[in-house]
Amino acid sequence: MTSTLVTGVSELVTNDPEVGDGSALGLLTGAAVICEDGLIGWVGSAADAPAADERVDLGARAVIPGVVDSHSHLVFAGDRSAEFAARMAGIPYDGGGIATTVHATREASDASLRELIAARVAEMRAQGTTTVEIKGGYGLSVADESRALRLAGEFTDEVTFLGAHVVPSGVDRASYLELVCGPMLAACAPLARWVDVFCEPASAHAFDGAEARAVLLAGRAAGLELRVHGNQLALGPGVQLAVELGAASVDHCTYLSASDVAALAAGSTVATLLPGVEFATRSPYPDGRALLAAGVTLALASDCNPGTCYSSSMPLMIALAVREMGLTPAEALWAATAGGARALRRDDIGVLAVGNRADLAVIDGPSYLHLAYRPGVPITRALELG
Amino acid sequence: MTSTLVTGVSELVTNDPEVGDGSALGLLTGAAVICEDGLIGWVGSAADAPAADERVDLGARAVIPGVVDSHSHLVFAGDRSAEFAARMAGIPYDGGGIATTVHATREASDASLRELIAARVAEMRAQGTTTVEIKGGYGLSVADESRALRLAGEFTDEVTFLGAHVVPSGVDRASYLELVCGPMLAACAPLARWVDVFCEPASAHAFDGAEARAVLLAGRAAGLELRVHGNQLALGPGVQLAVELGAASVDHCTYLSASDVAALAAGSTVATLLPGVEFATRSPYPDGRALLAAGVTLALASDCNPGTCYSSSMPLMIALAVREMGLTPAEALWAATAGGARALRRDDIGVLAVGNRADLAVIDGPSYLHLAYRPGVPITRALELG
Repeated sequence: MTSTLVTGVSELVTNDPEVGDGSALGLLTGAAVICEDGLIGWVGSAADAPAADERVDLGARAVIPGVVDSHSHLVFAGDRSAEFAARMAGIPYDGGGIATTVHATREASDASLRELIAARVAEMRAQGTTTVEIKGGYGLSVADESRALRLAGEFTDEVTFLGAHVVPSGVDRASYLELVCGPMLAACAPLARWVDVFCEPASAHAFDGAEARAVLLAGRAAGLELRVHGNQLALGPGVQLAVELGAASVDHCTYLSASDVAALAAGSTVATLLPGVEFATRSPYPDGRALLAAGVTLALASDCNPGTCYSSSMPLMIALAVREMGLTPAEALWAATAGGARALRRDDIGVLAVGNRADLAVIDGPSYLHLAYRPGVPITRALELG
Repeated sequence: MTSTLVTGVSELVTNDPEVGDGSALGLLTGAAVICEDGLIGWVGSAADAPAADERVDLGARAVIPGVVDSHSHLVFAGDRSAEFAARMAGIPYDGGGIATTVHATREASDASLRELIAARVAEMRAQGTTTVEIKGGYGLSVADESRALRLAGEFTDEVTFLGAHVVPSGVDRASYLELVCGPMLAACAPLARWVDVFCEPASAHAFDGAEARAVLLAGRAAGLELRVHGNQLALGPGVQLAVELGAASVDHCTYLSASDVAALAAGSTVATLLPGVEFATRSPYPDGRALLAAGVTLALASDCNPGTCYSSSMPLMIALAVREMGLTPAEALWAATAGGARALRRDDIGVLAVGNRADLAVIDGPSYLHLAYRPGVPITRALELG
C-alpha cells in the first residue's frame, strides 16, 4: 500500500460541507490530500498533514473533485460537422441526423470504435473528467447495441442502454418498440447499469410518453435503473414521467412548465442540464437559477455526441451554466461534480472525503473560480497519480 | 536553408481565394505545404509536392493559418476572479476594477511580469495563436507604461501604447491627459507600433471623443499607427472617430448605431469583435451578420485581460462568433486569421501563400469546421517546426 501526499494546493474544493468554510463546496485553503491505493486517506490543512510514502507538489494550484460527466454518447463513428454548419445557417434540429451516425457506427470495426472511445475518454480526462457515463444508441439493432455496450463497458461502470434513442428509418414504430423491450433489452441488460429513452411529444424520431413508459418499465423489470432524455425539443411528458418512476436523472430539461419544476422539486430525480446542447443547437437555455430556487438538485453534463454537442469540455459547461443559466461558479462546479455523482447515484465520487475514490482534478490557477473565469482555456486536468 | 514538407493535411485553409475551392478560405483537400526558414515555400496538392529536406506527417488533420489575436492585454499581475464572480451575481462592469490590476502590476518585478507574459503567450500558442498584439495600460505612469511596452516587445512586434486606458484614481483628468500625450508618449513611442485609447461617452474611467482624438493625434504625430477601443459600454463616438482618423481597427463595437455601421462600411477601418467580452460581462453580442452584410471587414480577437475576458482561447471566440453573432464557421475563421492580419495591417500573416510567414495551426479533426463544432475542447495548436 503506497500513500501519496498531494500538497501545494492553494484552494481545495471538497464538496463536504462539514469541512473548511462550511459552504456547500467545503472550501479549504492551503490544503493537502493523502491518496492511498486509489482512495482518499486524509484531507486537511497542509500544516497538519501526516507523513506519506510519496509527495506531489502542485505549486499553488486549485484542486477540485474529479468531474463527473453523467451524460455522454461516446460510441460512434463518422463526422457530422457539415450538419452542424448547416444548422448554424438556420436548418433546425429534429433528431433526424442520428441516422447518419448509425450508418457509420454499424460500419466501423470493433477495433476502430474502441480506438475512438479511448481517444474521447482520454480527451475528457485531459479536461478534468474522471467519471463518465456512456450510452449506446447508434446501433439500433440487437447486435449493434450490445456491441456498443460491451465496448463502453471497457471504459466505464456507468453504461446505459439506449436502444430507444430513435426509431430507425424504414422500421415500423410498434415493431421497433417490441424489439427494444424484448430481444434487444435481453441482450443488453447484462451489459448495462441503466436504461434510458429519448422522450418527446409527437416526434417522428423519438418516443412519446406511453412508449417511453413501456421502455423504462421493461428496463426496470430486467434489473436496470432509470434515466430519461426529457423535454429537449419542446414541453412534453419526459420530466414528469421520470419523476413518477423515480428515475435517477432526467436530462436536458430545456423546456419546463411550472408543473415540471414542481414535480422535480417534490421528487428525488436530479435535473441534469446540458448547456452544450443549447449552445450547439442555438436553443434557449433553461433557467437554472429558478430550478435551484425551487429546490431542485442539478447536475451538469456534456452530452458529448456528434449531433447536438460534440464538446467533451466540462469546464465549458460550467462557464455556460454561469453565463447562461444564472448559476454561481460555486453552484455550477457543485453540479458538475457532486451533482453528477447524485445523477449516477454514486456516493464514492464527487465529494473528497476519506474513503471515497481519490479522483482529483487540478486547475492551473489559484481558485476554482478560474473554471468559469477562463472559458475555453485548457487549464483543468485530471491528476494522474502513479 | 532547411525545408520541411508538411503532409497528412486532410484539409488546408489558405485564405487565398486564388487557390483550392475558390472560396474566401481557399480550401484545399489532401494538401501539403513546404516551409523554408520560417516562410512558406510551396502550397498545393500532396500528390504534386516537390521534395524537401524533412517531412512532418499530420495524420489526416486540418491545417489553418496561424491564428492572429489582434487585441490582448497580457502585461498584468494579480487575480480578479472574485470580481468576475461578483459580476456574474449582478454587479455591472464600468471599468473601475482596472485599478486593482494597476496596483498589482506596478508592484510586480520585471522578472515576474516577464514570466506571466511568457506563460500567457505559450498558452495562446498551445491554442493555435501565432501572432498576438499586446497592449500596456495597467501602468498608467511614465515608468510603468514604458516598462510594460519594453516587456511586451520581448514577445511580439505588435506592441500598443495604451496609457489612455483609464484615468488613474486620485489623478486629475486634464493633468493625466497631458501626461499621456506628453512625457508618457515620448517615453513609450519608441517602444510601440500602435497607439490606442479606451473611448466611451461620459465615463468616469474612460476617455470621451475629444480626449480620445487628442490622444490619437498626439500618437500619430509621434509616429504611431492608430487603433481604438470603441463602443464597448454604450453608443458613443469611438467608432466614427476611428474611421475618420483612418485607424487600422476599432475594437469591441458592442453597441453600434446605423450611422456607425455606415461609417465602417464606407471606411477602411476593420471592426474587431471581441465576443469573449460579451460572454464574460453578460453584454449583448453585436450583430456580426449585419456588419458583413453591410460590407464591413471583421476581425475576431480575444481581448485577453483580467477584467472583462480572461480567456486566451481564439477557438472559443470563433465558436461564440458562430453561435452568437451569426457568422458562418468559415467567416469566423477568416476573421480570426486574415481579418486579424488586416486589423494589424500585416500582409505576411493570415494567408498561407508563398513568401508569407510559415505560421500554421493544426486541428485534431478532419476539417476547420471542428473549431466551432467542438467548443471548449483543446484540439487546436500552433505547429512547431524544428
